[in-house]
Amino acid sequence: MDLKLRNPDFEAVVRENYSRQYFMLHISAELGKFAPGFCTLHLKSRPELSQQNGFMHGGAVAALADVASGLAAFTLFEAGADILTVELKINYLAPAAGEEIIARGEVVKSGRTLTVVRSEVFAVADGVKTLCAAGMGSLMTRR
Amino acid sequence: MDLKLRNPDFEAVVRENYSRQYFMLHISAELGKFAPGFCTLHLKSRPELSQQNGFMHGGAVAALADVASGLAAFTLFEAGADILTVELKINYLAPAAGEEIIARGEVVKSGRTLTVVRSEVFAVADGVKTLCAAGMGSLMTRR
Amino acid sequence: MDLKLRNPDFEAVVRENYSRQYFMLHISAELGKFAPGFCTLHLKSRPELSQQNGFMHGGAVAALADVASGLAAFTLFEAGADILTVELKINYLAPAAGEEIIARGEVVKSGRTLTVVRSEVFAVADGVKTLCAAGMGSLMTRR
Amino acid sequence: MDLKLRNPDFEAVVRENYSRQYFMLHISAELGKFAPGFCTLHLKSRPELSQQNGFMHGGAVAALADVASGLAAFTLFEAGADILTVELKINYLAPAAGEEIIARGEVVKSGRTLTVVRSEVFAVADGVKTLCAAGMGSLMTRR
Repeated sequence: MDLKLRNPDFEAVVRENYSRQYFMLHISAELGKFAPGFCTLHLKSRPELSQQNGFMHGGAVAALADVASGLAAFTLFEAGADILTVELKINYLAPAAGEEIIARGEVVKSGRTLTVVRSEVFAVADGVKTLCAAGMGSLMTRR
Repeated sequence: MDLKLRNPDFEAVVRENYSRQYFMLHISAELGKFAPGFCTLHLKSRPELSQQNGFMHGGAVAALADVASGLAAFTLFEAGADILTVELKINYLAPAAGEEIIARGEVVKSGRTLTVVRSEVFAVADGVKTLCAAGMGSLMTRR
Repeated sequence: MDLKLRNPDFEAVVRENYSRQYFMLHISAELGKFAPGFCTLHLKSRPELSQQNGFMHGGAVAALADVASGLAAFTLFEAGADILTVELKINYLAPAAGEEIIARGEVVKSGRTLTVVRSEVFAVADGVKTLCAAGMGSLMTRR
Repeated sequence: MDLKLRNPDFEAVVRENYSRQYFMLHISAELGKFAPGFCTLHLKSRPELSQQNGFMHGGAVAALADVASGLAAFTLFEAGADILTVELKINYLAPAAGEEIIARGEVVKSGRTLTVVRSEVFAVADGVKTLCAAGMGSLMTRR
């Protein structure tokens, strides 16, 4: 895995990018730990994020996986580059039940144009983490 | 394509299901036209649904495609069955720019256990529709 | 859909490309009709292409969808450009039963770098076509 | 991860299943190590398995990932159950260059009806392994 760091200021640009992801702020998702090729996000359960059975909505799960993937890729981008999600696939494995979900994106391949990221979303119930979704997607560097 | 209608009251159960998708209500998505094997949803652009460049957030696009797919499948379910998204893949084709997005789910295969649905999301700018995402996913009947 | 033809000699380059897809020749797949943004391939059933239940093997179905997608994209490439499959997702809808399968790729979005292609594979049994797989994938132009 | 073994004779049924995957035998793919929730396959490079640039064809890579995924799932099936691939998505990460490819499927979630499997395909060149494709798919138990 070639995880070449192209921007020593990645931390600042990731935080700045996230601060403009208004949809994430709107649903109160929070940026967690991140490092080159890696990012986590947290989202606390709230009634307005639920689906018909009271679990966290799949759309919220997918959105969190999408952004965790994007930011994981973005950590490795050169300064000034923008990011675009090309595609994302998610398999739902278990209901997102509990007090919060944590999405984790991890770069599998960092190319000049395309970055491929694996994502996992865990539901945390009474402190116990259950893998509830697993994804893989491609992101594109725009210079 | 076998689009056997298993529940003549599908309209009522789709509306009832949607009324409990609190995440959809929270982001002000609206149920549009639907029929056996088919469903559309509408979501008006608002600053809090946007991403870092001012377009509608990919997570909102994916969530809308997910629910349009799910409800398209659900129209064909027997009475009393519940629905679960198994997996969803989305390709992003163009920025979701404009005043609203419309997601459209259409059943490709309706099986006893699994239903496969194709989805499309259009961005409407000044009344002109542009295809901005195309997806395909599997949904499961739970009896 | 922007299906700009970038190479008037696309027919010759598609045929030339196909003539070097030795795996396709090895399994006796045949290039069918193609046009800008569109391509079909045919593969006759043979015992050595089958899986454990006597249907055409899913791997052969996927390979055919992959190449039909690739060539559909390739019809729109500029002269001299090479092609790379970025990702492909296939949903299997029905057993590939019958005397042949036909894969059909159709470009959904033709970008400068990425092309998104929808694919369908039909099984032909006693002359009747059944949709047995539906896919979507991304292909990349390499200059 | 719940990897409950439902058939103590899984080894025999995996071998028997593989012996009827005629497409795999036709391309000379070989069953490698397998264990509950896990399976590897090997495929030696040969000119007739190549694509237009001399690398192993993406269709062969996908086919190998498909079967490694299927057999990984199948190791956990109850006696007498049959298997069906529901869907498979593959991201291609690097050219499949070298003397052989090895596909590895690993169960992520083993459910009553559906099993989700992660797959990786490595290209081996001069003994060095490079990850050339990563996938995720769903398989279904048929009783």
